[in-house]
Amino acid sequence: MPASDAIRLTALLSGPDRPGLVARTANWIFERDGNILHADQHCDDDANIFFQRIEWLPAAKNDPAREAAEFQTYAAKKLGMSALVVPSSARPRVAIFASKAGHCFHDLILRFRASEMRGELACVIANHEDLADSAKTYGLPFFFTPITPKTKSAVEKQQLKILREHGAGLAVLARYMQILSPAFLAARDFPIINIHHSFLPAFAGAKPYHQAHARGVKLIGATAHYVTPVLDEGPIIAQDVSHVSHRNNVDDLHRRGRDLEKVVLAQAVRWHLENRILVHSNKTVVFD
Amino acid sequence: MPASDAIRLTALLSGPDRPGLVARTANWIFERDGNILHADQHCDDDANIFFQRIEWLPAAKNDPAREAAEFQTYAAKKLGMSALVVPSSARPRVAIFASKAGHCFHDLILRFRASEMRGELACVIANHEDLADSAKTYGLPFFFTPITPKTKSAVEKQQLKILREHGAGLAVLARYMQILSPAFLAARDFPIINIHHSFLPAFAGAKPYHQAHARGVKLIGATAHYVTPVLDEGPIIAQDVSHVSHRNNVDDLHRRGRDLEKVVLAQAVRWHLENRILVHSNKTVVFD
Amino acid sequence: MPASDAIRLTALLSGPDRPGLVARTANWIFERDGNILHADQHCDDDANIFFQRIEWLPAAKNDPAREAAEFQTYAAKKLGMSALVVPSSARPRVAIFASKAGHCFHDLILRFRASEMRGELACVIANHEDLADSAKTYGLPFFFTPITPKTKSAVEKQQLKILREHGAGLAVLARYMQILSPAFLAARDFPIINIHHSFLPAFAGAKPYHQAHARGVKLIGATAHYVTPVLDEGPIIAQDVSHVSHRNNVDDLHRRGRDLEKVVLAQAVRWHLENRILVHSNKTVVFD
Amino acid sequence: MPASDAIRLTALLSGPDRPGLVARTANWIFERDGNILHADQHCDDDANIFFQRIEWLPAAKNDPAREAAEFQTYAAKKLGMSALVVPSSARPRVAIFASKAGHCFHDLILRFRASEMRGELACVIANHEDLADSAKTYGLPFFFTPITPKTKSAVEKQQLKILREHGAGLAVLARYMQILSPAFLAARDFPIINIHHSFLPAFAGAKPYHQAHARGVKLIGATAHYVTPVLDEGPIIAQDVSHVSHRNNVDDLHRRGRDLEKVVLAQAVRWHLENRILVHSNKTVVFD
Repeated sequence: MPASDAIRLTALLSGPDRPGLVARTANWIFERDGNILHADQHCDDDANIFFQRIEWLPAAKNDPAREAAEFQTYAAKKLGMSALVVPSSARPRVAIFASKAGHCFHDLILRFRASEMRGELACVIANHEDLADSAKTYGLPFFFTPITPKTKSAVEKQQLKILREHGAGLAVLARYMQILSPAFLAARDFPIINIHHSFLPAFAGAKPYHQAHARGVKLIGATAHYVTPVLDEGPIIAQDVSHVSHRNNVDDLHRRGRDLEKVVLAQAVRWHLENRILVHSNKTVVFD
Repeated sequence: MPASDAIRLTALLSGPDRPGLVARTANWIFERDGNILHADQHCDDDANIFFQRIEWLPAAKNDPAREAAEFQTYAAKKLGMSALVVPSSARPRVAIFASKAGHCFHDLILRFRASEMRGELACVIANHEDLADSAKTYGLPFFFTPITPKTKSAVEKQQLKILREHGAGLAVLARYMQILSPAFLAARDFPIINIHHSFLPAFAGAKPYHQAHARGVKLIGATAHYVTPVLDEGPIIAQDVSHVSHRNNVDDLHRRGRDLEKVVLAQAVRWHLENRILVHSNKTVVFD
Repeated sequence: MPASDAIRLTALLSGPDRPGLVARTANWIFERDGNILHADQHCDDDANIFFQRIEWLPAAKNDPAREAAEFQTYAAKKLGMSALVVPSSARPRVAIFASKAGHCFHDLILRFRASEMRGELACVIANHEDLADSAKTYGLPFFFTPITPKTKSAVEKQQLKILREHGAGLAVLARYMQILSPAFLAARDFPIINIHHSFLPAFAGAKPYHQAHARGVKLIGATAHYVTPVLDEGPIIAQDVSHVSHRNNVDDLHRRGRDLEKVVLAQAVRWHLENRILVHSNKTVVFD
Repeated sequence: MPASDAIRLTALLSGPDRPGLVARTANWIFERDGNILHADQHCDDDANIFFQRIEWLPAAKNDPAREAAEFQTYAAKKLGMSALVVPSSARPRVAIFASKAGHCFHDLILRFRASEMRGELACVIANHEDLADSAKTYGLPFFFTPITPKTKSAVEKQQLKILREHGAGLAVLARYMQILSPAFLAARDFPIINIHHSFLPAFAGAKPYHQAHARGVKLIGATAHYVTPVLDEGPIIAQDVSHVSHRNNVDDLHRRGRDLEKVVLAQAVRWHLENRILVHSNKTVVFD
């Protein structure tokens, strides 16, 4: 058994399917005396796209960074696949966007502190000041960026600047009640994960618990998804639901929904940071 | 303890809320030496409507049918409530509508035969002949009523005639792939329960599993609801979901969905037959 | 509709079943111009015990404290029932016992701060110092009470003293890794809720996730229960499970179990504080 | 895309872990122009055992039966692994054991008839005659083998003879209320799957729903497992649970449990027939 702190590499590949892909990637690693720890693949039969996640332990004699780069080149040049290879030592910096509600905010931060997440918290950006003290207690930089229709464009530029300065590799909208503009989305160079408090595509848009109560559904849900320019239409990463009844008013739905939102958002962020998610034609392949 | 075959009465009440309703109905029963076995109530705070389900054992000296009628009159005249009072000996006759798929059809019938349902099967109406032999094996009258756009109106009249002749008190659409016309719905004098293979309001309409696969959701669902003239918009009775992943193709969703559909539809039918459901402003109150 | 800050009363009754109980309690309230908001009852047919929870709004002219006392007397004297009547303004003081693990500790405290719980945090008692700083940040008195077999008896006396001084009306063992002695349990005058990390009665005792992994179960669970002198055998309040597979090692079970433990413990504490739980012959009746 | 009726091969391998196993099996297939459709592996880190399931499409020019045999030899001789290779055309013959209860019996048979199962029903063996007519309706040979303590040994020999004559490759105990003797288990040469109506290891043995009700649990469960000589201690294949409350009496638990039992047993049987299960040290690895 390797020392648990030896660096492992995880590759996420995708591209046109053709025979021999499993054998070729396994061989490439085997020839360099690497030891495959996990390998999982999927073929989208409709689109004929092959997806793979391989996690391996490079030989002690090899430089992991160099092996990662070489694998990436091999995948592109010889297999026609795009590949993202990440060492287990990587710790992407994660920015949290919040508004007033603190449940996802506290839950995420406590999970980072409990070492459940393979990343580091970078900063908190919020359009309200309610969570400023808590962020301070957690030792996190807090940026209060109030937004009005008039200031939105300027504020978003300021937010992008903060994110760049803090080296954000992922942004998480932890019940951030603002819609990011297409300009913001075009300018950022990192993925963004949002939690929507319904089982999308049901109840997209504003006030989903009110919508759910009005329709009289017997389940409420939560959906974590990557943000795209089309509101609530990005690739879905994780979803879960909870049973409700006629006894539950809108406040009850909010309270019970908070538990769903926390767990679903945390799962999506964890999967992303562990390099388990590939996106294709607005859908996700999650190698959990 | 009463003999288990003594007739019990179940009342479903609803009407404008006002103080004293719980005391008054309980008193009315107590004064006649009845024994309340279950009592459950709910108040819709938005609409200020009171709902109640009371199940009681009338005194042995009293005639249950007469007590039921008197309670109904009392509720209407003195409390301003509409009440439906049903004896535990009632066995509504249930008609099943089917097409080709047999899973809900078999499941429902086997539950009636296993005495899970407080009702009696009346007949099967289908627009395909696939289940004719099975119906015969179960000893159920089977009516093959193929439908084309041209014959729809005439066929629906024939169906209504069959339902009347078989004394249907409830119709269950067990994956019946036809839309009942407004004329049919206006003419029938019994409720109709449908199973839709999605978590409504998501994926209403045709081919919900295809829609779900295309959207890349991580949950599929099933919804049992009363049929109203607006397609897939009737009051929801029961819903459940099952987790799926990128590995599941549309066929998998169908297979896994069948298990959901069977259980959700059976639960809705059982609740209905046990007089547990009240409908108000397109929502259900289910006293389970 | 009453002002939402008007004091409501909640009664929990239990005693030998006999006809007329529902009518009598409802009448008693109605005669004093009270308005019943919720009423739920249950009869244990084996033991012939009647259980009821009634929540009502006393008339504005009446003194809630006096009405509560009078109801209690009425139930005891006239109905032969024991009754606990609690005003909605009551805020029992809750003590948290912890060891090293912080997940239930943080989760509970954040729920109190988010006003999800009808109670007030009194203090934290722990046999390790790991959570001392966090408790301080939350503004909670923290008592470090390390325990060895030799000191156990003395330390427990000290703990009882702390609990008395802080007016504890409930103690919650938030993954407290010590067994409370029969002497401690006999001396305390408040209920204690524990979270056990398995679906009891499976895997009682130490290291349940290790036991679960060794047995190869496909579900892990969590159980919240009242503490009695028999370890892990107290009345069960709430349980839930999560699916696991051969891929999950013991660490994974711990991580996934933490989410279960948090939610199940919080639900049990919330139900207790809302006066929803009656205990009878080592089982609970939960009026949720 | 291959014609969907082309024969695929599925190999289940297990043995001591060592570097290069993934590459070697993939290569072996690739060198014969096979196309890997799915590959999933797992390493038990405690025991250092490697498990793999590979499903591939052999080249059209190759004989699948011969390729299967060669792969098995390769795995054993060159990799030191035991391998079971099964063509997708295989249809093991399945015998059902039943007593009086029909829910799992009907459910399983209807799933075979709906082509959900990759096997063929061989016969029904029962110690009661209740299901004889239904078996006849389904066109299945029904063997009534009543058992008393005195006749048990002789009857089991008769049952083994029936199973041999009907070519049983799997036996399913569909709520068969008899314990198979060690002699029977030693004599049979096929696996046996049982459904136990509790979440094992809780409530092993007789009357689990009575045990569950007596303990006051808030969840009931069902467990499908391979049968071994130690009662209810065989390797667990699948488990699920359902929430219950104080309102549910033992009859309710039975009714609600039936839905669990059907789904859990069917899932286990389907996984087994699709060659997805490996057993190791009394646990299962399920490649679902």
